[in-house]
Amino acid sequence: MGKTLAEKILSEKTKQDVKPGDIVVSPVDWALVQDTTGPLTVREFLGLGLPKLANPAHTILFIDHAAPSPQKQLSCDHTFLRKFARDYGAVLSDVGEGVCHQIMAEKYARPGDVIVGADSHTVTAGGLGAFATGMGSSDVAAAFGLGKTWFRVPETFFIRLTGRLQKYVTAKDIILHLIGSIGADGATYKALEFGGEGLSSLPVPDRLTIANMAVEAGAKVGIFPSDDATLEYLTSQGRAADHRYVAADADARYERTIEIDLNKLQPTIAKPHTVDNTATISEVKGTKVDQVFIGTCTNGRLEDLKLAADILRGKRRNPATRLLVAPASPQIVLAGMRMGYIQDLVQAGATILPPGCAGCLGVHQGVLGDGETCLSTANRNFLGRMGNPEGLIFLSSTATAAASAITGVITDPREVA
Amino acid sequence: MGKTLAEKILSEKTKQDVKPGDIVVSPVDWALVQDTTGPLTVREFLGLGLPKLANPAHTILFIDHAAPSPQKQLSCDHTFLRKFARDYGAVLSDVGEGVCHQIMAEKYARPGDVIVGADSHTVTAGGLGAFATGMGSSDVAAAFGLGKTWFRVPETFFIRLTGRLQKYVTAKDIILHLIGSIGADGATYKALEFGGEGLSSLPVPDRLTIANMAVEAGAKVGIFPSDDATLEYLTSQGRAADHRYVAADADARYERTIEIDLNKLQPTIAKPHTVDNTATISEVKGTKVDQVFIGTCTNGRLEDLKLAADILRGKRRNPATRLLVAPASPQIVLAGMRMGYIQDLVQAGATILPPGCAGCLGVHQGVLGDGETCLSTANRNFLGRMGNPEGLIFLSSTATAAASAITGVITDPREVA
Repeated sequence: MGKTLAEKILSEKTKQDVKPGDIVVSPVDWALVQDTTGPLTVREFLGLGLPKLANPAHTILFIDHAAPSPQKQLSCDHTFLRKFARDYGAVLSDVGEGVCHQIMAEKYARPGDVIVGADSHTVTAGGLGAFATGMGSSDVAAAFGLGKTWFRVPETFFIRLTGRLQKYVTAKDIILHLIGSIGADGATYKALEFGGEGLSSLPVPDRLTIANMAVEAGAKVGIFPSDDATLEYLTSQGRAADHRYVAADADARYERTIEIDLNKLQPTIAKPHTVDNTATISEVKGTKVDQVFIGTCTNGRLEDLKLAADILRGKRRNPATRLLVAPASPQIVLAGMRMGYIQDLVQAGATILPPGCAGCLGVHQGVLGDGETCLSTANRNFLGRMGNPEGLIFLSSTATAAASAITGVITDPREVA
Repeated sequence: MGKTLAEKILSEKTKQDVKPGDIVVSPVDWALVQDTTGPLTVREFLGLGLPKLANPAHTILFIDHAAPSPQKQLSCDHTFLRKFARDYGAVLSDVGEGVCHQIMAEKYARPGDVIVGADSHTVTAGGLGAFATGMGSSDVAAAFGLGKTWFRVPETFFIRLTGRLQKYVTAKDIILHLIGSIGADGATYKALEFGGEGLSSLPVPDRLTIANMAVEAGAKVGIFPSDDATLEYLTSQGRAADHRYVAADADARYERTIEIDLNKLQPTIAKPHTVDNTATISEVKGTKVDQVFIGTCTNGRLEDLKLAADILRGKRRNPATRLLVAPASPQIVLAGMRMGYIQDLVQAGATILPPGCAGCLGVHQGVLGDGETCLSTANRNFLGRMGNPEGLIFLSSTATAAASAITGVITDPREVA
């Protein structure tokens, strides 16, 4: 019987013929933590009493969530992670070195890899054909020590993409549309596998955006086949050798198939306070916006800077609307300056934040005031997410965010650009 | 009898023949607050029951100290300041629009102006020949409402600069040397007037750095004559029309004269925990540094980015030493990218922070961990200043900071560059 992509990866890794519902123990290619989950993970690992990490060069500690640190307690957490990395030979990605999921894509994740991370959005690497998932700190600590972990093999939903996106409708609108359609628990513990002829028009950065938010529908992984676009991306990162083609069997059996016609998609927004509370742009346009935030593991890539710069170039943000832009890695910062996107954004009144998670999780760099509204390209709009339960968070694409920064209200990017 | 520069400005403003010790009421050209002192100032102003600001277009509210906001209470303070600016027609300089004292220099301060601000480092504008001083929030609130304030006319110390700085010895070393010589209370309520033939080699950015720290010796103002260098700076800002020559009378009477031979100055460091606890570089070099911070109203200018880039270009920061760089205004960010300095710094491993005060005051963007040492180009190294009383802060020039980022220990820039 044919296998889905998730089943194929887990079969290969475990050298078993796995099927949905099986409990398997799989080797782990990469285990990662970030600075909010890392200290707990490290303490759990130390509590195991193991003399060393199973695979230090594939154990990565990222300092990105509260970086540079806004509080001394967090600074001390950072110090603790640095010392552990030194003592145990783990890889450290320090303050300013980028958002964990972006760096995994740029440097580490490979098609067919199994990746676990103490962060929900570890799923992002599914955009490169990896079986990548977030786990609790204790589970990741075990993976640190043992180099393997257990999974229940997920059933797979196939998301068949047809057609092609209109200008200023983006990958973010695809995933917001999907989550709105099936709900925040619509794919609980499923693998969301993306495919169909629409795939060919989605380069890897788009796939990373989509995979990143699979978890917002409850999915265990969001996963794309590895194809020539994947090869192109890895080659651009100097990692052509990391490429291989991975795909589901032609006769794979899916629990459910969902069709999305890209031609028909509209700019889509998630309204407060859940990601599945979606609306098309026409339903929410005109809503006043105090702060626009472009960045994060969802939409902080070079393609986002380009899109925002294309919309904002020669224009100026609304004076009543702050515009915060956080490129997701130093590579993106350098490329963004080389291409002039960052210059265009600063000219338009953007404030460029250092590579990292910025205001996404509400501990620094853009905490909302009471009653303020943020239009964010991040992946979560839960009550209080940006540091203030009296604030409202709408999620959108970078195109919608950039257009809205100009007008000061939620705006259809097709009407501004 | 001849007058010092401070006496001349106050005489002109008050249309009186003032002398040291006189209590005078002077018109105020500019009154400013920032986001930590602003809310109190505004509440004091509102408590006065006045219908309007004396001079709204010359009343400036800066959001720079905790920007973008790291905490909801501070975000709400920002909202409060924005609303006040809207309601009363005051000038608002919002998140990411720069450090107040840098923006005062770029856009507003003029030779001969009287400037009061609810921030100690309002003295910075003395670099342009303004009588500029920090006051308490209540005093600034009164200036908001009345357009004038009272002063006791300060006695003046004359700082006669001779010779010329060696390469990689900077204006910051001059002022650290002076503060170390006379002590943190060595010039309490005095005007520090800088002059002498050494002045001609100090362009306005250097003068701003020196004036900025006059308050660290207790001075009421730090003030430079306005000369051709001042004209050149104002012209570069499109403000040639704001220039006029101001200088002390040739026969001015100074309470004290202090000579500094620039030829003899060494790179100078302030050790924890006071600014006057200075040492020359040879006494402290080799001290391990966990974080280097280049920025602030003292040393966040284009000339600092150039100096740091010249030292770091083609090199790389020590992996154990974080390098945080916060340009002081968007103009500096744009020029820094145009000149390639920011690109060089990012290539060298620097993390570029948004225009603002960054970690200087310890509420975000670089709070130290327990036991960590920061080498900072800021103006204060008080216990706990960077958010953690268990951290150590050394102050230096940008040259020393950049050189030390490479080696990971306090380093004489003349030995690296």
